[in-house]
Amino acid sequence: MNRVSLHFEILNSGAAGRRGTLTLPHGQVETPAFMPVGTAASVKALPQHFLEELDARIILGNTYHLYLRPGHELIRRMGGLHRFMSWPRALLTDSGGFQVFSLNELRKVTEEGVRFRSHLDGSSHFFSPEHSMDVQIALGSDIAMAFDECLEYPADRERARKSLDLTMRWAARSKAHFDAHKHEAPWVDELEQTPNLFGIVQGGMFADLRRESAERLVEMDFPGYAIGGLSVGEPRELTREIIADTLPLLPADKPRYVMGVGYPDEIVEYAKMGVDMMDCVLPTRAARHGLLFTSEGRLNIKNRRFAEDQGPLDPECSCPVCQRYSRAYLRHLMAAQEPLAAVLNTLHNLAFYLMTMRRVREELAGSVPSI
Amino acid sequence: MNRVSLHFEILNSGAAGRRGTLTLPHGQVETPAFMPVGTAASVKALPQHFLEELDARIILGNTYHLYLRPGHELIRRMGGLHRFMSWPRALLTDSGGFQVFSLNELRKVTEEGVRFRSHLDGSSHFFSPEHSMDVQIALGSDIAMAFDECLEYPADRERARKSLDLTMRWAARSKAHFDAHKHEAPWVDELEQTPNLFGIVQGGMFADLRRESAERLVEMDFPGYAIGGLSVGEPRELTREIIADTLPLLPADKPRYVMGVGYPDEIVEYAKMGVDMMDCVLPTRAARHGLLFTSEGRLNIKNRRFAEDQGPLDPECSCPVCQRYSRAYLRHLMAAQEPLAAVLNTLHNLAFYLMTMRRVREELAGSVPSI
Repeated sequence: MNRVSLHFEILNSGAAGRRGTLTLPHGQVETPAFMPVGTAASVKALPQHFLEELDARIILGNTYHLYLRPGHELIRRMGGLHRFMSWPRALLTDSGGFQVFSLNELRKVTEEGVRFRSHLDGSSHFFSPEHSMDVQIALGSDIAMAFDECLEYPADRERARKSLDLTMRWAARSKAHFDAHKHEAPWVDELEQTPNLFGIVQGGMFADLRRESAERLVEMDFPGYAIGGLSVGEPRELTREIIADTLPLLPADKPRYVMGVGYPDEIVEYAKMGVDMMDCVLPTRAARHGLLFTSEGRLNIKNRRFAEDQGPLDPECSCPVCQRYSRAYLRHLMAAQEPLAAVLNTLHNLAFYLMTMRRVREELAGSVPSI
Repeated sequence: MNRVSLHFEILNSGAAGRRGTLTLPHGQVETPAFMPVGTAASVKALPQHFLEELDARIILGNTYHLYLRPGHELIRRMGGLHRFMSWPRALLTDSGGFQVFSLNELRKVTEEGVRFRSHLDGSSHFFSPEHSMDVQIALGSDIAMAFDECLEYPADRERARKSLDLTMRWAARSKAHFDAHKHEAPWVDELEQTPNLFGIVQGGMFADLRRESAERLVEMDFPGYAIGGLSVGEPRELTREIIADTLPLLPADKPRYVMGVGYPDEIVEYAKMGVDMMDCVLPTRAARHGLLFTSEGRLNIKNRRFAEDQGPLDPECSCPVCQRYSRAYLRHLMAAQEPLAAVLNTLHNLAFYLMTMRRVREELAGSVPSI
């Protein structure tokens, strides 16, 4: 391949965060960016064109779920995940590690990898760094993630140390296998580009282990870095501290991604600390349970007090839901368990998250660079 | 009110059906028309703007469901059903009778009306012709339906005779109460029009009773007439026969509506017999179960044979689903129980039904009038 498959240009940078453009094989992403989660080849309940209307430039796919159903080889035969789900914009896939490690009772970890049982039918499967790379290459994501051990919280220092070492060995194996096989992604010939692999900083809640993890990963030279193992139950101040401590250890000219965060005020806070990418199931999952985010805070639309509220969900929101429907109607859809509730609630919550990030980018664009 | 609230203009009429324009307080409907069912103030899983994009001009609401949840008085306070669900186009409501009579174990019929228990919480309720009218007027539908007894199938002559007499007495009571109160509909002052009430022909599967029912209703002078009590389990030839026998008994200058039909080939057949309006839950309900209608016939998208089928659902369909997604993807959404399956399947099935009716209208527009 002659063309670079990832180009990251920083447009503004300062004490209040940085704004940039991340160019991937499937298009440009304006950063800082929030990435909606599309677990099983669908951002639950939302037709793809709604995501385009919201100007989502990159969404996530979950390797574990897609591996089990419909299967990565099927998706490869269908031309890759972009074509399979008709999403021509950028895709990031996780490594499958997070889901596999969530199957507490059903997994066994060795140096080689993780044996686990499917949550769907109990069948036995094995994920190694190499296998995770094979699956992600078959899916053809723009950004694949290294296979890492997701450390439980709380974990003591010895446990964190051992886990970190394993994750670093797995990162090296991930990279070696990925580099050897990335040319097999479904769209490589068509686009004359290849997928990209990001490394993941682990190390539990220990600053020195996080530092070591970052340094070892940087030595391996990934085109981007993620901070993983956060939002696992630790207090929010600790999340913030780990992010603040880790960011300066990562190359300033490469994208920095904090995985699995967060509430609207968190994603703003982290973006302003210099994080470029974030993802979280919160806006979509909460939507399906009636928890909606607005400029006036969170609200549970199932609450009786909205039964006759003719106002929009969020008077300051310009999304199609707030422009058309009342709180009373949205409340009724939840109460009557209408499937439209999930569609409209998800549409609004994602609009709110994406709008929140757009505002941060606009602020950064207008900001005076720090000296 | 000075303005007529229903105007029916027949544009073409002949042996192969008739084409017309039905003008209602909330807009024009081109007939013959298929009306999607929006049971509880939502055509299940579809945002309203999709229905507009499909050019649906009129949809149904179910009086029984809306009465129970969120309640017709709440909807009246919200400005009526159009405003509550943000559907500015025409609405037709059924009388609640069909649902109430489906609650076999939970109902008791008297001359006065029907006592029944809610399927939601077992609470006791009473529907009379007057109450059904009150509910429909509170909802503010463009077309309300007379409260009728829905005869079970099969039913013997004596049972059909008694039921018909009750339905005719209820029709008269419906009309009297409706005419006395229709000015109370939520949008009457704003639009300077009132809702309309249609009568319903019953009589079981007996031609002479159907004739009597039609004649007695015509004498009461409704602005439109429905043929009810069909599609209740009888053979299709019998449905067709009853429709063929009954249509000529109804005034040619008024809209004729066959309730609760049918498959795509049925709605074409009935439209070509001179039926102007039809409704059915089939396209929406079947969609949620993966049964899809195409120009090549029905298919069950869950079938394994579609797992790697990259073609569109229906190569001849111009709907947003067929333009964008593959059978393989739609099959995956069903297999993975993704909520998007219901959205896309419903969108396609309704597009197919509405397109089918559009084709019939185009044929009729091009047809040479019979002499």
